[in-house]
Amino acid sequence: MTATIPPFLAACRRQPVPYTPLWIMRQAGRYLPEYRRVRSQAEFTTLLRSPELAAEVTLQPLRRFPLDAAILFSDIMTPLQGMGVSLSFEPGPVVHEPIRTDASVDALSQLVPERDVPFVLESIRLVRAGLPAGVPLIGFAGAPFTLLCYLVCGRPSKEFGAARSFLYSNPAAAERLIDRLADAMSAYLRAQAAAGAQALMLFESWAGLLAPPQFERFALRGVRRAVAGLREAGVPLIYYVNQGSALMECVADLDLDVIGVDWRSPLGTVRRKLGPGKAVQGNLDPAALFASPEDLRRHAGRVLDEAGGAPGHIFNLGHGIWPETDPDAVARLIDYVHERSSRQDGTGAVAP
Amino acid sequence: MTATIPPFLAACRRQPVPYTPLWIMRQAGRYLPEYRRVRSQAEFTTLLRSPELAAEVTLQPLRRFPLDAAILFSDIMTPLQGMGVSLSFEPGPVVHEPIRTDASVDALSQLVPERDVPFVLESIRLVRAGLPAGVPLIGFAGAPFTLLCYLVCGRPSKEFGAARSFLYSNPAAAERLIDRLADAMSAYLRAQAAAGAQALMLFESWAGLLAPPQFERFALRGVRRAVAGLREAGVPLIYYVNQGSALMECVADLDLDVIGVDWRSPLGTVRRKLGPGKAVQGNLDPAALFASPEDLRRHAGRVLDEAGGAPGHIFNLGHGIWPETDPDAVARLIDYVHERSSRQDGTGAVAP
Repeated sequence: MTATIPPFLAACRRQPVPYTPLWIMRQAGRYLPEYRRVRSQAEFTTLLRSPELAAEVTLQPLRRFPLDAAILFSDIMTPLQGMGVSLSFEPGPVVHEPIRTDASVDALSQLVPERDVPFVLESIRLVRAGLPAGVPLIGFAGAPFTLLCYLVCGRPSKEFGAARSFLYSNPAAAERLIDRLADAMSAYLRAQAAAGAQALMLFESWAGLLAPPQFERFALRGVRRAVAGLREAGVPLIYYVNQGSALMECVADLDLDVIGVDWRSPLGTVRRKLGPGKAVQGNLDPAALFASPEDLRRHAGRVLDEAGGAPGHIFNLGHGIWPETDPDAVARLIDYVHERSSRQDGTGAVAP
Repeated sequence: MTATIPPFLAACRRQPVPYTPLWIMRQAGRYLPEYRRVRSQAEFTTLLRSPELAAEVTLQPLRRFPLDAAILFSDIMTPLQGMGVSLSFEPGPVVHEPIRTDASVDALSQLVPERDVPFVLESIRLVRAGLPAGVPLIGFAGAPFTLLCYLVCGRPSKEFGAARSFLYSNPAAAERLIDRLADAMSAYLRAQAAAGAQALMLFESWAGLLAPPQFERFALRGVRRAVAGLREAGVPLIYYVNQGSALMECVADLDLDVIGVDWRSPLGTVRRKLGPGKAVQGNLDPAALFASPEDLRRHAGRVLDEAGGAPGHIFNLGHGIWPETDPDAVARLIDYVHERSSRQDGTGAVAP
């Protein structure tokens, strides 16, 4: 009850909070009519590269809902263009010359954020100027292995077969690509923090493609290298591990603050595996927003119960919100989580 | 060492075996030139409905490799056509009129296998006549929830959003659809056993879409109902749970013999969660077949080590073999698993 920093930042650091803070992955997006209006007048790539437009759509959900954090509207592929990768969105990202050889790994240039992606840093400054003091801004990047998936395959696929076989058939080249991406994302995230991002998140969207030994060898190699230089930024670090049920033991000892959890893993189980040194973020099934209001409360309540209450829980969906979602259901969810968690004491028990 | 029944069937029942038996999901398929030759002269749907052709491609991998089981060449969607569902393969299954209402659930007819899918039963008889006595034949069906995904969505998708939101928005209709599919698949599998299938397998290809409470409510409701009538068939029952890392505790008490495991879950962890009452089948990453011969042995050896040796382990991939796979890598894998496991004693230790 006495937190003087915003609840989202306090929860990242497992400090006491007056209620469980909440934000929603892809909260700036197609389920909002005001976002669709902006998109009807600007291509997706234009939106990504226009600080005014990116700041506008970042702020849209904050005007509508009492969310506890903003997240920059951007795409994990954006900095790769700054490294010399030619790509387009059709609508998924398509890399025009997939990277599968030592030579194509070496051809990637190092990212200098101020030179290569100045529009991202300018978006951050504009968003910070438009946000109330109590709502922190999250910056983000793709985790190295997830970026590797797109770079090696060329386009999204269900199995990402070319990326997975690349790890087995040419592990040394895969490690070099991971290292190069980790260095670039580290610089990218440091620059975002310097521009005003108050927390930094790495998205491992494709963690679920890997058996634990491969996850350790490639994905965690990249994450460890990327975060090694980030502690000096002084902001909380979040690692979202999609489809990571079998990987929670692997991430428990990472030097970061919060693990983002998809909807498949009960948070109670996750917290036992992670131990007391990590906060958790998640993990309502995005499909639960299609339930009746009563059922939605029940599903959200189960997530709060599984998390065991504050401190150290940030409520979120387990994956990005779907474009077909009714914004009214989002409003009901936020109200319920805030109201119910404000009746919990610090141990997670609900006051009578 | 004294097993008088085929090693595959002994392993299903957790009895001693002379070596770890092995078969490969999709072993009859596009990675084999002889399969591609048959397909060049017959449409996929023709192949499914022609007993002679289906039997031929079922037997092809057995002529080439010392596999320990055959699995009928068929598709999980085949019996749905017998229930009145209009569909085509483009190449993934496309249901022409997706099922999303009570009325469309009720319009499904009950399956009478001898009347509706006689060609499947004839295929089984032909395969049995062509198989050596030591190689059992596995029959199979889609698990009810996985079939629901295709029926509700109409066509495969990465997220199967329509199916997942259907479970939340109309759970009563979803349960009725699950029950109807379970009854049909139970009849279908019983008929396969009567025609000569010596083990029966349910494929839950989309288990990984569900949080554990939804998996319990919908997927396991269907599996329990489907297998309730199958014990009298007297053959081992296998349940493949794809992306099931978070679900192993849920399936431990099912009344069946073997849990099929995808490549994301270490088998040691899985066996601890399942307890001693289940055998396990799996779980090499299909991508590992693209590694060097030396690395492939190392990856396969790790699976054998994780499984803790016979009894109760059937070696397999964690998912279907990829069309791009080199058949020579398959031959090397089989030889290695047989040779290495024949040096293990019953506790899984390798003799010096």
